[in-house]
Amino acid sequence: MNWERELAARADLINEGLDRYLPPAALYPPSIHEAMRYSIFAGGKRLRGALTLAAAEALGGEQARILPAACALEMLHTYSLIHDDLPAMDDDDFRRGRPTCHRVFGEATAILAGDALLTLAFATLCHLKRDFPPGLVLQVIEEVAAAAGTRGLIAGQVVDLESEGKQVAPDLVEYIHLHKTAALFRVAVRAGALLAGAGEHALSALTDYAVAFGLAFQITDDILDLTGDEVLLGKPVKRDLARQKATYPALFGLERARELAAFQVRKALQSLEIFGAEAEFLREAARCLLHRRS
Amino acid sequence: MNWERELAARADLINEGLDRYLPPAALYPPSIHEAMRYSIFAGGKRLRGALTLAAAEALGGEQARILPAACALEMLHTYSLIHDDLPAMDDDDFRRGRPTCHRVFGEATAILAGDALLTLAFATLCHLKRDFPPGLVLQVIEEVAAAAGTRGLIAGQVVDLESEGKQVAPDLVEYIHLHKTAALFRVAVRAGALLAGAGEHALSALTDYAVAFGLAFQITDDILDLTGDEVLLGKPVKRDLARQKATYPALFGLERARELAAFQVRKALQSLEIFGAEAEFLREAARCLLHRRS
Repeated sequence: MNWERELAARADLINEGLDRYLPPAALYPPSIHEAMRYSIFAGGKRLRGALTLAAAEALGGEQARILPAACALEMLHTYSLIHDDLPAMDDDDFRRGRPTCHRVFGEATAILAGDALLTLAFATLCHLKRDFPPGLVLQVIEEVAAAAGTRGLIAGQVVDLESEGKQVAPDLVEYIHLHKTAALFRVAVRAGALLAGAGEHALSALTDYAVAFGLAFQITDDILDLTGDEVLLGKPVKRDLARQKATYPALFGLERARELAAFQVRKALQSLEIFGAEAEFLREAARCLLHRRS
Repeated sequence: MNWERELAARADLINEGLDRYLPPAALYPPSIHEAMRYSIFAGGKRLRGALTLAAAEALGGEQARILPAACALEMLHTYSLIHDDLPAMDDDDFRRGRPTCHRVFGEATAILAGDALLTLAFATLCHLKRDFPPGLVLQVIEEVAAAAGTRGLIAGQVVDLESEGKQVAPDLVEYIHLHKTAALFRVAVRAGALLAGAGEHALSALTDYAVAFGLAFQITDDILDLTGDEVLLGKPVKRDLARQKATYPALFGLERARELAAFQVRKALQSLEIFGAEAEFLREAARCLLHRRS
């Protein structure tokens, strides 16, 4: 499998969907719609949305019908990045090689653009009702809201910020990773699986996969912050170090962090043992984490 | 009808619901849950939630079953206040007699508390599925997401901020009021009506009511900013004047603004002509706007 090409094909589909679901840039008031589009079309890899599609594919689901869920997950991810980058939060000026949303549009518009993408994610999930029973759509909305809330994504962001500059225990770093990062991957995969009609066994296996994937993703992200190439990453490196963020490399050193990432990738692959070739995209996605360059 | 008492009874019900739907303050990480509760239990009148309940009552609907919708509307309202008060937005230090969320918990936590309440509003709407068909719940979620997005609430906030210090035309002031304020009142009333099984005629009448109510509410709000009592309002007055906000009193003077508010109240009352005594709470809510003191 040429995984990069397979990912790009899914990203194309997701980008087309996002272009349809986001209001046109010229729609009044244009500043907010330009800001939303600036951030969502900033060259993200669409990994979360692609995993939604891939989880459904692993169960024989169709990409096109699942697309609103994949797009909603990407909206949530972009909202969280816009708000994380704000001066009051991580105070980042660059992301994916471009100035961050608030650097271009100002803080007020960036806050509102994040709010708008969060809101639009839920509106977009409602589009699923064209192709799926309303009860199932509601279940997906409920899971997404839980994953994005203060028992998921937001909890991770809070603890991440509060842990800056502090000596933190390994289980707290894991808490941050599980919530800040793995929660969205988890619900991305579960949404695809639920919509494809996953049984309990398959859903549980895919959930385990997604959590291990999310942890491996965050560990490799933190390693890249220390060892990566600024040009490839599109942002300054060693930001975590400067802000004394709670990360595995900071806690255990690079070598042990790489071992932990490899361990999570193995766990992710083991979770998929009940699947055949139809889960190859998911497998390759996990394997690729170990040689990420961006 | 003793409207104040009737409103207080509905507010009690809504406060009980909010206490149930919000995570406990002590839930880890506590800072975010304390901030959410600080702002949501800051003594709001629960007007939006009460109108949700009252719209359902006008059609014979039961309060208890509609409660998640009323609570979700109050969460949305509080999220919008927390974000509006941020230094990058209206930069307000006081609301309802207390320091604003970011003054107590810091900007990062305030941004996240707003995000969390917005997210929790959608999670709370999902609770409606216990008592209503999933298709109807989805319709309500869809309407709420639209009203809160960049074709509703957020559009109003954007144009409001961008109009500061500028000479604006009357139709732009109306645009701001319709989006910043009336959109949430409109969906508050429509959610209650839809859940109570409103027919097309009743739904349309209640929608007209809610829009006129929302406009009257915002005009009287702007009048209070000029003429109100700081102690009763719980915030400094003449803030709109200082920030050169686009308001009717600024545009036309106080007297004409009072006439416009009275006109919208008449319109609201006329919209309810097809209803009998069961819509008396809604009528009295509109009449009371003309002698608001807070």
